Amino acid sequence: MRLLRIHTPDGLRDAVLNDDGRVQLPDGAAVDLADVRLAAPLDPGKIVCVGLNYADHAAEGGQQAPAEPILFMKAPDTVVGPYDDIVIPRGGDKTDWEVELGVVIGSTAAYLGSEAEALEHVAGYVLVNDVSERHFQLERGGQWDKGKNCPTFCPLGPWILTADEVPDPQAIKLGLEVNGEPLQDSSTAEMIFGVGYLVHYVSQFMTLYPGDVISTGTPAGVGAGQKPPRYLKAGDELRTWADGLGEQRNKLVASS
Amino acid sequence: MRLLRIHTPDGLRDAVLNDDGRVQLPDGAAVDLADVRLAAPLDPGKIVCVGLNYADHAAEGGQQAPAEPILFMKAPDTVVGPYDDIVIPRGGDKTDWEVELGVVIGSTAAYLGSEAEALEHVAGYVLVNDVSERHFQLERGGQWDKGKNCPTFCPLGPWILTADEVPDPQAIKLGLEVNGEPLQDSSTAEMIFGVGYLVHYVSQFMTLYPGDVISTGTPAGVGAGQKPPRYLKAGDELRTWADGLGEQRNKLVASS
Repeated sequence: MRLLRIHTPDGLRDAVLNDDGRVQLPDGAAVDLADVRLAAPLDPGKIVCVGLNYADHAAEGGQQAPAEPILFMKAPDTVVGPYDDIVIPRGGDKTDWEVELGVVIGSTAAYLGSEAEALEHVAGYVLVNDVSERHFQLERGGQWDKGKNCPTFCPLGPWILTADEVPDPQAIKLGLEVNGEPLQDSSTAEMIFGVGYLVHYVSQFMTLYPGDVISTGTPAGVGAGQKPPRYLKAGDELRTWADGLGEQRNKLVASS
Repeated sequence: MRLLRIHTPDGLRDAVLNDDGRVQLPDGAAVDLADVRLAAPLDPGKIVCVGLNYADHAAEGGQQAPAEPILFMKAPDTVVGPYDDIVIPRGGDKTDWEVELGVVIGSTAAYLGSEAEALEHVAGYVLVNDVSERHFQLERGGQWDKGKNCPTFCPLGPWILTADEVPDPQAIKLGLEVNGEPLQDSSTAEMIFGVGYLVHYVSQFMTLYPGDVISTGTPAGVGAGQKPPRYLKAGDELRTWADGLGEQRNKLVASS
């Protein structure tokens, strides 16, 4: 199933995307996808991000592939819908993109015993853009979180694809275009640490709760990895996609 | 005012601590503090932590005082009450303490213009223990968050002291004892970056919302700074205190 949420005059409503491409509401009505405004499909409890989880992305940043997963955090208040604007923060001159596979946790998980057990705690998958301001992340003293938590820096959705419809989470093609130009184009097959490994790993350090999201890292092709580096500016348009997970379309706007 | 929350058979209830030391409930009843179980006084939206914000603490870790605040994140699901147990995580052999002044945000704040404006967004202050597993934080690849987000790693409270009762947030004595031995004993006067500076600073990178907490860093005297280093073990008892903010008493227990 593809689970989504739509904006209505009465607030957010849960819905399902049917095979015919129409949005099925709980009361039985179905509407065209083009006629609704999608919100992020969930309000995550916490968002745990994985750094440098594709060897080619680590290499484009001049970094070695990590011996074990690098974890950092993104506050849930950064989440926006799949077609919402992304705001370039004031003073941010290196705002960058990162298409990622997001893992939605379905049941409480702590100290999991195996990768197989870990996969049983996955409710589904969701497309994430781990938007990053490299200047804040890397040049302003210490930890990455400073460049990962600007408002609107987590477009999420359009939907959650339930895990039963994902036979192999390591075979999902995903990518990102800037103004129509494909800059990221890869597959989760290229991840250093796969989904089962990551859920198992994270559960050794923190308890995962239903609705938490693990964002599993980005492949090569971010702005910082271009020669020369290339960052986002107001007016740029992103198309972020993953097979089975739909696409996001976000416009960059200047901070008010 | 001192705002707190108590556990009742009907769930958490807001209350106020009177000057006579009794807990005033909204329905007019008052009960002895000794007769109630306190919860954390709020459920933070996000918890932004400041690293190395006391020069003596930076020095004890062999680090230079930072040129600008170091920020990292603690997930709100790590919060426990002021008298709750702290769980030593599995594989955690360097679980450490950090008494800190917590700043509770009262109104939405983004791109604040000055420290004075920043202080107007502070609802009050709360005692925080930024419990940290140094092995996970420093020896497991990359970012600190991995050692800051274990379950129970954020004892919070006992109460929020409203900002109107804090004439100078840079004149609060605070400390921590392990099994009755004073190991941290300092004052917020020793902070490198004061409360106004920090709230102003954080607001340049992320939007602060009502109920968010900024934990402002710890003074010298953590376990990692002892000669030789000394870490927590099951059965240890902590007393964490700050003038006007009350005290926490937490027992260390092994992970189940």
